[in-house]
Order: sequence, then structure tokens, then C-alpha cells
Amino acid sequence: MERANSYEVKVIGSVESSLTDPASAPRQPDEGAPEAWLVFEPSIQDALEGLQPGDKAIALTWLHRADRDLMRVHPRGDESRPQQGVFSTRSPHRPNPIGLHSVEIVSIDGVRVRVRNLEAIDGTPIIDLKPVLSSDIEQR
Amino acid sequence: MERANSYEVKVIGSVESSLTDPASAPRQPDEGAPEAWLVFEPSIQDALEGLQPGDKAIALTWLHRADRDLMRVHPRGDESRPQQGVFSTRSPHRPNPIGLHSVEIVSIDGVRVRVRNLEAIDGTPIIDLKPVLSSDIEQR
Repeated sequence: MERANSYEVKVIGSVESSLTDPASAPRQPDEGAPEAWLVFEPSIQDALEGLQPGDKAIALTWLHRADRDLMRVHPRGDESRPQQGVFSTRSPHRPNPIGLHSVEIVSIDGVRVRVRNLEAIDGTPIIDLKPVLSSDIEQR
Repeated sequence: MERANSYEVKVIGSVESSLTDPASAPRQPDEGAPEAWLVFEPSIQDALEGLQPGDKAIALTWLHRADRDLMRVHPRGDESRPQQGVFSTRSPHRPNPIGLHSVEIVSIDGVRVRVRNLEAIDGTPIIDLKPVLSSDIEQR
């Protein structure tokens, strides 16, 4: 299969959260992120099979309000800090505005997955969910 | 900005690696992954500014050979093991076939970034590069 210049990423669910204002949302999960729901589309329910409360997972989101043409940003939006290339930051502004969120599964109800520690705002599109591997941690 | 049902993910580079055969490539980086190059498009060079040898990073790829309609797989392709939902596995087969790779930057030469420990095969499209955060590790 030949490589293309772009691909279609499908929205497979969305975040339900008490966080609604991007300006006041925590920038990182250790800054006071609440519990929230990952609500998946019924069409992908089978993909959830086997998930358990207590599992550590990585939720991938599409940060659809981001500016995809910005290649350099002030870290954490702080204009007193010098600009950096976006690949040295977790800014949502980047060519493909994918968010990575380390979460812990609290409970599962059909296509609704309750998670701890999610800093994404209400309505954020979900694009994937992955288990954490030991190799994600060991090399760091 | 309204949420859409899908978004366009742009290919911003590709992997140059001695791994060329998906069947013989290591499934996870702790299974013998070599050094490889992340070769970015010239248009995103500014996004690389500030990256340093020794930095730990997460490379995101688009696993373009995957079957996006599979919701359950045999873990590691082993048919003796019962099928699981893809969100409990790191199988490339999933609705959005995004690969996450924990790498360490060895050197940087323009838009070419040499990394340790990448199990992606030659030609794999790159879609993002992120720094590792302490919160990625601490909660696990």
C-alpha cells in the first residue's frame, strides 16, 4: 500500500467533562484534572471488550480548535518565555493536533468509559484508546 | 469551532530504518528495535527547534497498512490466544491506526532526527513528535 500525503482520522467518540472553558482548563493532568467520561460511538463497541476498571490507558484526542500552521509557540502560552518549536512542547498547536492523555479507567458502562485525570474539555473528539506498555515507562 | 466526523491528518515525514519487513519487525521496542531516522518535511523544520540529543520523545506514526475495520484481534497475532477488543492491545489494526513510539533522540541533522529504539518499518508515515512529560510517567 502506497503512502499518501494525508489520511482521514475518524472521530470515534467524545469527552464528557465538567471542563468547558479551554482558558481555565488545566494544561496538564497533574494540575487538577477531574474525572470525565469517554463516550464512544456504538459502531466501535467491540473494540472496548476486555477493558477493566483500574487499567491504565492512553486516550488520544483531536484538539480541533488548534492552529495547525503554528510551528513555534511560547511554552504554556507565556509570552515572557522564548518561543520553542512545537515538537518540544505539548501545545495543542501543531501540524496534527493530537492530544495524548494518560488516564486510569474507573468504570465502564456500555460505550461509556469513566476515567480519572483527564484535562480535555467537554466535547473533545476521541480518536483512539491504547493500553500502557511496560516499554512506555522503562525507557524513560 | 464545530466538531466534525473526521479530520485530515497530514503526513509530516517518514521513517528511514533498516527494518523493511513487517512480518519480521519487532512488535515492541524492547524486542530488538534498532536506531532509525525520523525524516521530516522541510515545511515543518521550525517545529523541530529546541530538540536536543538525549531528549526522550514520543513519535506518532500512521500505520497505513492496518485494517481499520477490525475491532477485535488475537493479541500479537497469536491465534491460540482469545480475541480481545483492539483498545486493550497495541495492534496496528484499529479505527485510527496511530502508532506511539517512545524514543530517545541520538542526533539531529536539519530535518533528520536520529532516534534509538524505533520498531516502525522503513517508510512509515510520521504525524507528530512530542516531549515526554513527568505526568506521563508518574501516574503509571
